[in-house]
Amino acid sequence: MTGEESIRILMTGGTIDKEYDPLTGELTFGKSHLSNILNQVRCKARFVLEEVMLKDSLQMRSEDREEILRRCVDCPESRIIVTHGTDTMVETGRVLGNNVKGKTIVLVGAMIPYTFGASDALFNLGCAFAAVQVFHQGVYITMNGKIFPWDNVRKNKESGEFEKLKD
Amino acid sequence: MTGEESIRILMTGGTIDKEYDPLTGELTFGKSHLSNILNQVRCKARFVLEEVMLKDSLQMRSEDREEILRRCVDCPESRIIVTHGTDTMVETGRVLGNNVKGKTIVLVGAMIPYTFGASDALFNLGCAFAAVQVFHQGVYITMNGKIFPWDNVRKNKESGEFEKLKD
Amino acid sequence: MTGEESIRILMTGGTIDKEYDPLTGELTFGKSHLSNILNQVRCKARFVLEEVMLKDSLQMRSEDREEILRRCVDCPESRIIVTHGTDTMVETGRVLGNNVKGKTIVLVGAMIPYTFGASDALFNLGCAFAAVQVFHQGVYITMNGKIFPWDNVRKNKESGEFEKLKD
Amino acid sequence: MTGEESIRILMTGGTIDKEYDPLTGELTFGKSHLSNILNQVRCKARFVLEEVMLKDSLQMRSEDREEILRRCVDCPESRIIVTHGTDTMVETGRVLGNNVKGKTIVLVGAMIPYTFGASDALFNLGCAFAAVQVFHQGVYITMNGKIFPWDNVRKNKESGEFEKLKD
Repeated sequence: MTGEESIRILMTGGTIDKEYDPLTGELTFGKSHLSNILNQVRCKARFVLEEVMLKDSLQMRSEDREEILRRCVDCPESRIIVTHGTDTMVETGRVLGNNVKGKTIVLVGAMIPYTFGASDALFNLGCAFAAVQVFHQGVYITMNGKIFPWDNVRKNKESGEFEKLKD
Repeated sequence: MTGEESIRILMTGGTIDKEYDPLTGELTFGKSHLSNILNQVRCKARFVLEEVMLKDSLQMRSEDREEILRRCVDCPESRIIVTHGTDTMVETGRVLGNNVKGKTIVLVGAMIPYTFGASDALFNLGCAFAAVQVFHQGVYITMNGKIFPWDNVRKNKESGEFEKLKD
Repeated sequence: MTGEESIRILMTGGTIDKEYDPLTGELTFGKSHLSNILNQVRCKARFVLEEVMLKDSLQMRSEDREEILRRCVDCPESRIIVTHGTDTMVETGRVLGNNVKGKTIVLVGAMIPYTFGASDALFNLGCAFAAVQVFHQGVYITMNGKIFPWDNVRKNKESGEFEKLKD
Repeated sequence: MTGEESIRILMTGGTIDKEYDPLTGELTFGKSHLSNILNQVRCKARFVLEEVMLKDSLQMRSEDREEILRRCVDCPESRIIVTHGTDTMVETGRVLGNNVKGKTIVLVGAMIPYTFGASDALFNLGCAFAAVQVFHQGVYITMNGKIFPWDNVRKNKESGEFEKLKD
């Protein structure tokens, strides 16, 4: 628990940041809501926000994951939260887990956009903030109130929940 | 990180559970919202909810803190979240910190009720869920996106924020 | 202004009742939210809820409009609110306007679902409740805080707003 | 139904505009939310916002009601919405009803603040917008989905609902 060390937040998109477009009836990206969210919840942990991209994670390609990896390696902070779509979060976790040493990285997302009612975004972000401050190093995914190491987690497509691969 | 061990959630009241009474214009307690909250945020970590009391923490007396202590000691779980009003959260933390051994306890609350707009309740609860699963033992307070050991924290009455007593 | 005469509310679907499905990322219909809405807003005007269908109005065909017409004619109430998708609301208004005599009918919908943040559903419904009680007879559309007779309104597809055809 | 004539909105305070102060746990007034509300609900009826005062209506004195009356008489618009606390709304309605001729005035408020969950503010405002555009003249109160002439309404203190004095 470091308390005063700054946390880098790399925003990559995903449901957490999606918005409803009343003209098309589609979900789209405007600008990230992270800054508003962290203000609303009165977060006083030090953090730096950085927008890497705003993408549905189904649209992410290997170049995108390489870019996220590069930002994780290059930033001066050793504690990093990556906001990310849930569909390929595990895949990005694998790229980071295999290539980043000596840093604590937590990937987090939401099943329901922050701007909709009954969203899981704030709770999930809270989990990520605590996890990234407590773990010494490693790459983790926080979803559904649980914390998973990057190499023991999958998204169950039927239930929409994250679960361990093996006990 | 245990994952499958059950978390005991002791509800004691506080702003997180307060409601607006339209007839009196006052804030009151109805029944706890914790069950609805954890359903909304799709929490799949195992937990047991137990209502100890629903009080404004300014109304808590030493008997109340003794009761909370007794429930922490008596419950079979070693990982415990205590929802609590912010005004005397530090005081209850001291009672628990001085008397509970071998368990992980996280106290958490909110500055704005869950049922109001722009609440910090979900984020704070997320922090508590992650912290209680990661720490081996000890008594902690999670507020404002930070995690404090029970003996190095105070609530700043002017700002409404929790802060360290000493670096 | 009748006050105690009952209002028939015919629910036909539209954005007002849509929900977000976190598994597919699509908007779908579950069950209508009208009953919850009218309870939330403390509505004490007498009303009878009747679900005719729950459809995106782009999916409505002439049989559907005939069915809505039939329900308007057959119900004992002379004051009727029809909740409806915005895309073909004007078309249904024309069928009702050309065929119903001696009743007051108000069509209403929303651009943003009730369950999302920042919805226009409650405001629009309020407009409809007042309009249906005040007008003696005729078919009207209430959207954007305005009230239009059925034969002098169109939905502007670019702006998503309803406007008069002619002054 | 005028459509393009501008509506004067006189803001006087009341629950609709109250906010929760997390430091004191009290309800207070910041600045009026009306502008944000009418933007959120996509209101395209023309209106002019004017803040007369922001008061709990229990704190209003006869000078305050005289001031509201003066603003109603002096403004160029003939269609006026007055946002007002519910506790003495009927009293202000009486002052306006007895003294304003040739204008349509609708008083409206809420039992639950706009910024809280499950508020009735948007629905009530919708009722007021429709009523003020449809009635030719007179002073009305819109609450609970009903529209009352100023001289046949009271607030039932037990239920918190507005009701007719006599049938």
